[in-house]
Amino acid sequence: MKHYLFVFFIIMTTNLFGQLDRIEPPFWWEGMKNSEVEVLCYGKNISDYSVVSESLKISEIKKTTNPNYLFVTVSTKGMKAGMYQLDFQKKGKTRFSQSYELKSRRENSAQRKGFDASDAIYLLMPDRFANGDPSIDSTTSTVEKVDRTINGGRHGGDIQGIINHLDYIHDLGFTAIWSTPLLEDNEPTYSYHTYAQSDYYKIDPRYGSNELYKELATEMHKRDMKLIMDYVTNHWGSKHWIIKDLPSKDWIHEWEEGDENGFQRSNYRMTTQYDPNASEIDAKGCMDGWFDTTMPDMNQANPLVLNYMIQNAIWWIEYADLDGFRVDTYSYNDKDAIAKWTKTIMQEYPDFNITGEVWMHTPAEIAYWQKDSKIGEMQGYNSGLPSVMDFTLHDALLVMFNEEQAWDTGLQRAYDNFSNDFLYPDINNILVFAGNHDTNRINEIYGNNFEKFKMVMTMIFTVRGIPQFYYGDEIGMMGDKNTKGDGDIRRDFPGGWLGDTNNAFTENGRTASQENYHAFVKKVLNWRKKTEVMHTGKLLHYIPMDDVYVYFRYNASERVMVVINNSEVEKILKLDRFYEGLEGAKNGFDIISENKIELSKELTIAPLGTMIIELSN
Amino acid sequence: MKHYLFVFFIIMTTNLFGQLDRIEPPFWWEGMKNSEVEVLCYGKNISDYSVVSESLKISEIKKTTNPNYLFVTVSTKGMKAGMYQLDFQKKGKTRFSQSYELKSRRENSAQRKGFDASDAIYLLMPDRFANGDPSIDSTTSTVEKVDRTINGGRHGGDIQGIINHLDYIHDLGFTAIWSTPLLEDNEPTYSYHTYAQSDYYKIDPRYGSNELYKELATEMHKRDMKLIMDYVTNHWGSKHWIIKDLPSKDWIHEWEEGDENGFQRSNYRMTTQYDPNASEIDAKGCMDGWFDTTMPDMNQANPLVLNYMIQNAIWWIEYADLDGFRVDTYSYNDKDAIAKWTKTIMQEYPDFNITGEVWMHTPAEIAYWQKDSKIGEMQGYNSGLPSVMDFTLHDALLVMFNEEQAWDTGLQRAYDNFSNDFLYPDINNILVFAGNHDTNRINEIYGNNFEKFKMVMTMIFTVRGIPQFYYGDEIGMMGDKNTKGDGDIRRDFPGGWLGDTNNAFTENGRTASQENYHAFVKKVLNWRKKTEVMHTGKLLHYIPMDDVYVYFRYNASERVMVVINNSEVEKILKLDRFYEGLEGAKNGFDIISENKIELSKELTIAPLGTMIIELSN
Repeated sequence: MKHYLFVFFIIMTTNLFGQLDRIEPPFWWEGMKNSEVEVLCYGKNISDYSVVSESLKISEIKKTTNPNYLFVTVSTKGMKAGMYQLDFQKKGKTRFSQSYELKSRRENSAQRKGFDASDAIYLLMPDRFANGDPSIDSTTSTVEKVDRTINGGRHGGDIQGIINHLDYIHDLGFTAIWSTPLLEDNEPTYSYHTYAQSDYYKIDPRYGSNELYKELATEMHKRDMKLIMDYVTNHWGSKHWIIKDLPSKDWIHEWEEGDENGFQRSNYRMTTQYDPNASEIDAKGCMDGWFDTTMPDMNQANPLVLNYMIQNAIWWIEYADLDGFRVDTYSYNDKDAIAKWTKTIMQEYPDFNITGEVWMHTPAEIAYWQKDSKIGEMQGYNSGLPSVMDFTLHDALLVMFNEEQAWDTGLQRAYDNFSNDFLYPDINNILVFAGNHDTNRINEIYGNNFEKFKMVMTMIFTVRGIPQFYYGDEIGMMGDKNTKGDGDIRRDFPGGWLGDTNNAFTENGRTASQENYHAFVKKVLNWRKKTEVMHTGKLLHYIPMDDVYVYFRYNASERVMVVINNSEVEKILKLDRFYEGLEGAKNGFDIISENKIELSKELTIAPLGTMIIELSN
Repeated sequence: MKHYLFVFFIIMTTNLFGQLDRIEPPFWWEGMKNSEVEVLCYGKNISDYSVVSESLKISEIKKTTNPNYLFVTVSTKGMKAGMYQLDFQKKGKTRFSQSYELKSRRENSAQRKGFDASDAIYLLMPDRFANGDPSIDSTTSTVEKVDRTINGGRHGGDIQGIINHLDYIHDLGFTAIWSTPLLEDNEPTYSYHTYAQSDYYKIDPRYGSNELYKELATEMHKRDMKLIMDYVTNHWGSKHWIIKDLPSKDWIHEWEEGDENGFQRSNYRMTTQYDPNASEIDAKGCMDGWFDTTMPDMNQANPLVLNYMIQNAIWWIEYADLDGFRVDTYSYNDKDAIAKWTKTIMQEYPDFNITGEVWMHTPAEIAYWQKDSKIGEMQGYNSGLPSVMDFTLHDALLVMFNEEQAWDTGLQRAYDNFSNDFLYPDINNILVFAGNHDTNRINEIYGNNFEKFKMVMTMIFTVRGIPQFYYGDEIGMMGDKNTKGDGDIRRDFPGGWLGDTNNAFTENGRTASQENYHAFVKKVLNWRKKTEVMHTGKLLHYIPMDDVYVYFRYNASERVMVVINNSEVEKILKLDRFYEGLEGAKNGFDIISENKIELSKELTIAPLGTMIIELSN
């Protein structure tokens, strides 16, 4: 019977598929907690049809002002994996049919464990990391062609390039990868950043295919690594097929005062999301303004839009076997809608993790957006978002190692930042980072000073939270956003392209300087990976004095002491002040120098010295 | 009988008072909500005595390690005003007696209404404001003598000087005075600032007397003005008689590692009060460290100390008929003890007001300390403190008018500050100010630029909260703390001393420049006084654009539009953006220029122009 049905479907769909140009999600799964799936059917005047099914329960059919759309809500409750059929009828007669598949889920799919503070995340831009398949550098279906001579052009990096270098990343000690977006972005220029996506169900063919993305996840899981997808809810690309033929005007925010495309740039004032004194025009100007001319601002307050995004996100988790999302411009979204998006996903996958980009400059403003925030609660708001990013630590890291310590400068900035940790409902689930694809390269800021790099990265790797690292920093890559623009902080990784004379992926290929950086990252991260106190231990820190900052991570069985000397002078540290952190420890092992350390009365720290000391009695 | 008793007491106390050197509080009141008063009895070996009373109920007697103290807890429940008697006995025989008076309270004393946002506060330093009684410039009982040639010396200002100029302050539009401390400070130098007080029950004789302080309140109340006392709980002066003969060691924080006086300076890191990562040694270093060598840090965790401070504070409210406290260095105190101090006072006087100095640099950190703070609640903390100070607005005001607007500079700083208003549980009960006795003079910062002064003070006088103004700013007084020290921001008010050639207290005496400043303050404050929307109206503000900041205050019946142009160029403002604030208003009256304003399409604002526009339809 099953076999008979299958053949029947093949015939039906082969014969009659022409009537539907798109069906999204293209398939779904049995046994989801939320058993309903809203299937978007797109085709010329499709709304003239009614839809029935003998095998599937259709609970609702929604039309929009555009006759080319039908939204068919299907209940999958109790349905087994298999092929099903939707019949499109006119005057009671089926004019064509459309198969719809429910797939089986992988075992324990709902219980998948997202990334957490036991992980270290490697952030890369796929177009700039490694070109594993030059045959797809340009494709017929995508407009922008490869051209490495253009700073903001496509350089040919791809998913195969990532797969080819998974061992490299794994060897460095990273356990997770956040790649900037990989879905199709068919803008004619600057598509390499891929934040203006044109098809939410398709990997950009210049990066590979959906299947290859899934293979990336598989290869990573083989190595006990986690894949984090960069998800964009706030805006789609102007070339998205839905944007070009909107179901209804209110799928995006259009502006009477805007230009002919309905464009008005966002004022980017995220404070309007909670400011009790904000004017409505400013609030609308933030939330509904466009992020850029090529990025129509999506109206998530429209339930069809929101549900499209929820299902699409779940589809990718289930399809590609993802371990997490990083959500772009989280705090620019409609506040309630993005909370619903987040919570619905987390209900489906309670142990998943999602980190949101909330680029603000006080801990309270960032903490507002984390799940169960008491600050959000002041306004009755709970995003449901498990993880946010420690942008205030980043602010501090950008300047503190070029400053002497004073009341609020130098190392004091880090201390002051951590003093506000109580504002976060879950301090271990925040990303700590020295840079990303939108910020100046940390090595540029510190003038390629390796000692300062060690200080920065020691903090990133040893404080509470989830370390997130930007590709290329491990070889001391430079990049100056302020004067040279985004392209300069997104340089091609040397060795990622055939013919690269410098291949930093291999020890032999790295310059002496690159090897220095690389060895440091590799050493500390591989130590961090096996050192549980670094994942979940408490933090204990001391007011920086005389340009020296000392903090501890500790749990019931392990203690680590970190010492950073942000001065050009050797320092001798009296240890009695640190009795609470040392808890009687007399011996230590500095995992950076690999020296045993005697902890009797004093500790000598080299100029610009950094120590990560495992303590023992 | 009453008369007979009174005569008896006179005889007793006259004869036998010599046995007690001090009794504090020196008297108390009938009918207090908290009916117990803990009377400190101080005299040589007084603890050898037992204390009984026929007329008063003694509920407890506490001794300390120092035999010169007895703490006698008396219940006043149901007792009427009158003279009572304590008998000091040895071996069951009364060796001497001490009268103790319960006074009548003034009508509705418990219901006294503290200062609020309908007020405008004039902050003055009494030693530097006006010398109303040169005969007490120096006294035999106080060490430091008057010397106006010394920057940090005593200059002779006093309470009579304040009383003499109440009409001046009232005429300016102020309704409240916060004077820096007036209690005796018997340090040999720098006593003029009077934050190292040596007797908590006595006005410094160089300022006047307790009776004169009470007269100041009376004279103020006649003018519908409110008196705010500057109260110091964190530290007493090293010359305080109790400090010189401590009841027990644990009345102050002494340090083994400190110098011979037990001195160790506070690290001033108030973040340790809530930092979950702080070390105990750092927390102790903040809370228990001394503010200065002359200021022993009081141990409010000792119930005797705390109760002494509670009773003393209540004593002054009741005795001098106070309308509020400003509490010095509020956030350096023992956190729980200062909350108890605050709550006990507020229980006695539920409509009183107390503002605490919480000199921190993010709104969340300041809001933590306000009563019913949700941020404090995260750590189970509720200070009970009704009012705090908007130090972050102050931070902004110090720089913003010398900056062009960019993402986070210029006028944007003010906008960003107000965007966090929701963090405060009671945003109308926060002090807004451009300076105080510890900060650079605002006119110094803006180079005596009158237009910038108008912008600064317009904000202080028209945003939410309670405006607090620093004496002398109304005549454009300069003062440079950074290079010339505290004395320079605390110059003598011209005209306050006999022989002053410039008398800025009178219109005729003021220079043209002084009159300019003065007239502006007087005009705006007197308008503010009668304009209710300025006291309780909501704030609505707009993202500053092109160096122009626009905000509104509004309630059901009144609307005021404030426009500040922080550029040297005339600006023409299109009004349609402000529909929400204008709410259809077509006409306005600028209370600064006293011009009618037509609000049709555009509004022209002069370079560095400031407008406060009352709106009408």
